[in-house]
Amino acid sequence: MFERDKQQYHARVQHDMESLLPAREARPVRHALALGARILAKHGHFSVSLAGQITARTEGEDGHFFTLGFGVGFDEARASRVAVVDDDLSPVRGGRTMANPATRFHLWVYRDRPDVRAIVHTHPPAASALCMLEEDLVIAHMDQTPFADDLAYLRDWPGLPIGDDEGRRIADALGTKRSILLANHGLLIAGRAVEEAVVLAVWLEYAAELHLRARAVGRPKPVRAELARESHDFLVSPEVTGLTFDWFARQVVQLDPSVLD
Amino acid sequence: MFERDKQQYHARVQHDMESLLPAREARPVRHALALGARILAKHGHFSVSLAGQITARTEGEDGHFFTLGFGVGFDEARASRVAVVDDDLSPVRGGRTMANPATRFHLWVYRDRPDVRAIVHTHPPAASALCMLEEDLVIAHMDQTPFADDLAYLRDWPGLPIGDDEGRRIADALGTKRSILLANHGLLIAGRAVEEAVVLAVWLEYAAELHLRARAVGRPKPVRAELARESHDFLVSPEVTGLTFDWFARQVVQLDPSVLD
Amino acid sequence: MFERDKQQYHARVQHDMESLLPAREARPVRHALALGARILAKHGHFSVSLAGQITARTEGEDGHFFTLGFGVGFDEARASRVAVVDDDLSPVRGGRTMANPATRFHLWVYRDRPDVRAIVHTHPPAASALCMLEEDLVIAHMDQTPFADDLAYLRDWPGLPIGDDEGRRIADALGTKRSILLANHGLLIAGRAVEEAVVLAVWLEYAAELHLRARAVGRPKPVRAELARESHDFLVSPEVTGLTFDWFARQVVQLDPSVLD
Amino acid sequence: MFERDKQQYHARVQHDMESLLPAREARPVRHALALGARILAKHGHFSVSLAGQITARTEGEDGHFFTLGFGVGFDEARASRVAVVDDDLSPVRGGRTMANPATRFHLWVYRDRPDVRAIVHTHPPAASALCMLEEDLVIAHMDQTPFADDLAYLRDWPGLPIGDDEGRRIADALGTKRSILLANHGLLIAGRAVEEAVVLAVWLEYAAELHLRARAVGRPKPVRAELARESHDFLVSPEVTGLTFDWFARQVVQLDPSVLD
Repeated sequence: MFERDKQQYHARVQHDMESLLPAREARPVRHALALGARILAKHGHFSVSLAGQITARTEGEDGHFFTLGFGVGFDEARASRVAVVDDDLSPVRGGRTMANPATRFHLWVYRDRPDVRAIVHTHPPAASALCMLEEDLVIAHMDQTPFADDLAYLRDWPGLPIGDDEGRRIADALGTKRSILLANHGLLIAGRAVEEAVVLAVWLEYAAELHLRARAVGRPKPVRAELARESHDFLVSPEVTGLTFDWFARQVVQLDPSVLD
Repeated sequence: MFERDKQQYHARVQHDMESLLPAREARPVRHALALGARILAKHGHFSVSLAGQITARTEGEDGHFFTLGFGVGFDEARASRVAVVDDDLSPVRGGRTMANPATRFHLWVYRDRPDVRAIVHTHPPAASALCMLEEDLVIAHMDQTPFADDLAYLRDWPGLPIGDDEGRRIADALGTKRSILLANHGLLIAGRAVEEAVVLAVWLEYAAELHLRARAVGRPKPVRAELARESHDFLVSPEVTGLTFDWFARQVVQLDPSVLD
Repeated sequence: MFERDKQQYHARVQHDMESLLPAREARPVRHALALGARILAKHGHFSVSLAGQITARTEGEDGHFFTLGFGVGFDEARASRVAVVDDDLSPVRGGRTMANPATRFHLWVYRDRPDVRAIVHTHPPAASALCMLEEDLVIAHMDQTPFADDLAYLRDWPGLPIGDDEGRRIADALGTKRSILLANHGLLIAGRAVEEAVVLAVWLEYAAELHLRARAVGRPKPVRAELARESHDFLVSPEVTGLTFDWFARQVVQLDPSVLD
Repeated sequence: MFERDKQQYHARVQHDMESLLPAREARPVRHALALGARILAKHGHFSVSLAGQITARTEGEDGHFFTLGFGVGFDEARASRVAVVDDDLSPVRGGRTMANPATRFHLWVYRDRPDVRAIVHTHPPAASALCMLEEDLVIAHMDQTPFADDLAYLRDWPGLPIGDDEGRRIADALGTKRSILLANHGLLIAGRAVEEAVVLAVWLEYAAELHLRARAVGRPKPVRAELARESHDFLVSPEVTGLTFDWFARQVVQLDPSVLD
């Protein structure tokens, strides 16, 4: 068994993904959002309160966003019930949906980041506990590398997030990154697609869980920065987050096919 | 995107809740109690023993209370099986139900607090572990703010809670607050409605869970008192606890519609 | 609302249990054992390995015991598949069941303790982690009081428990108590009935869970000994363990009625 | 009740297993692999990402391996969908499956270890958290003895495992052992059969879970080396891992019989 240079394997993975994997089907954003909400619910991101939102730019008119109504659980999302609001959170197209009022800070991120197509904000337990502590996530496991150099931290909580203040601060702190931990509050992912945002939200909660478990015992040993970066770029690629979302989506459809109604 | 004063947003949220959210339907207290018991069971408040009770003032005669019979699991509650006891825990209307004898301390809280319509007392794992330690819940996360300046602590356990002693002590320690941790014992919520009491019980267990997870690693960073208060007032409003209970109720009805029989 | 002496309430609880609670139906030991195995499986006592056994004296001939065959999961127990072995673990009545060879140490406890009718031995995660540490369970919560002055500790593990050595040591260490933690090994309950043994096993795992959660943060504050004793005597009464088992039994029958086949 | 020498009991266990236990039926490797993947999914080894692989030598041609396609969840495995790849991970028999590119390090272990018939590599939470810390698993519980003198540790993570480098290092570090923890990465089991590899993977995650729980409180007390070895040899025997796998297999078939399609 001879050894090849790692670059050859990078090229081969790319080639195999294109030639051997079944082509991924694009799904309407409305479907992705309903599936994403169900996926997040299944992974414990929406269990004890109505806190948390998922939004996405619509395919059409600029400044319109898909979201769920306030009071609708992520576990109840259905494609046909996804609402459309404008860039002041008012319902459009004759809708009567009230968005979760905390969705306002999403608007600030969308304004600053034209590359962002979807945002997830949740309060899952491990990320919540981590952001109660003034301590950074250490990248000490391959499964944490999607956040290597790609995780911001808003170190002050500006209070009940219904105003403009937290939005401006989150957008500033996020900069060009995909993910951010919000002190005393939770996590936020700004993704290039619903699929990316949802998968990174699941992964950030798991990264926080690993961090807390290790920290209850000792000090995690960080991975080397260049190895973390290589792993980050592979895992955060649209192919890998897409494949992962497709698998999660099959799971929630199997649990309840009505998510696509 | 211009910025508005936060007071404007508070007003808008109030307005949107009234004009955009579907009107909430009032439910009979008997139904709320059965649903509340199932919700608490689903959230791990009644898993390993028969400890724990839920009671509510009946709509009618003063000094009558709804509760479940001793030996009935919260997971088995049904509206038609909810029992009525008097203010000495004897069954009324020819009933033969024995209330959990520890329900006696509820009576003391009702006596002192005419505003209280429902009480939940449970021993869930995180709140139980927290109240084994002589340490206060730090308000260090938005999801813990429902307990900012609204959580008492009874620092001594007076023993098996079947007598009058613990009731008097709990009522004294609770004062005008909604929630209390009972050292060596568990949690108690005194709500203005079953909906409020149940939702706060779920939230207090989650608040304790976050506290323990963070404390296994370090010291939670408290949120500023005025921000905690603003968030408390929003989250503990009848609108938000009501919307949250309605969502929880849909979940348990979907799991087993017989809860409303 | 006047106050009564606590002794009056103790008498009333006793009276109410006899006059208001439906009479409990005795069940055949074979049924109790199958139900008990399912209950323990549901509570995480038999999840990752075949370690763990449940045995009971038969109603009839002395020196005969009910148990499950080696290789049968607690989650698979059925009344009709419960086997009978003699006091050397050989199958009786033409049976071909092989008992778990570690059941041998049960025999030593039965020999020394004619009051013991049933034994549960399991390796659930919290009790297992606790018995890896040289530290005692602190009685710091009402739900831990069933083990106040009623929990022994075998401080040395004599190795693979297929011989006579561990049996003799366990019986010696247990003395007249109901429960024992086995260093590096797990828990054992010697009950006056299957119902008591199973309920105490569930409760000991929960007591260990509370202990570990609190100890990851600090030092549990013990309850006063006389209060622990009063609570112990109430909770470990045949009425309360019986009511609790009946509730657990309804849950597992609902999940799969074939347990009683 | 007289006492016998422990050697007599070892002989009796061996005899009883042969004469009293139903003969175990051999299953095709393809079935074992699909069942094994489902078992690992059920035990939390494949929950949040597509990381993790299971492979096995085919019964036939040398240098051919069964595995699942990249993007297929362990929870979705079916016997008929198990793919065959060659020793460079290319699909054989006209297949179009792309193996998980990280499967490459399996090849290095197979090359060095003709006794190894199956390999499991996963990132479950406890083993992952443990391998973020530079600390060894202490053998302090009977359920951890399958790893006594049989667990290696690769102390450096060579980065995204798609190349040859990690394979060579894992094979070197593993030596003649069955199990290895990979720093910053996860666990790997090299088994003499799919059954052994899967059962040991479940057990290693549990061993890590016990370790972390105990270590959050204090220092686990190790068991004596000769007792650990005796227990290791019993638990890792083909009879015990086989019985355990059969039980796990019945559980996943009951959940979804299509695993054997």
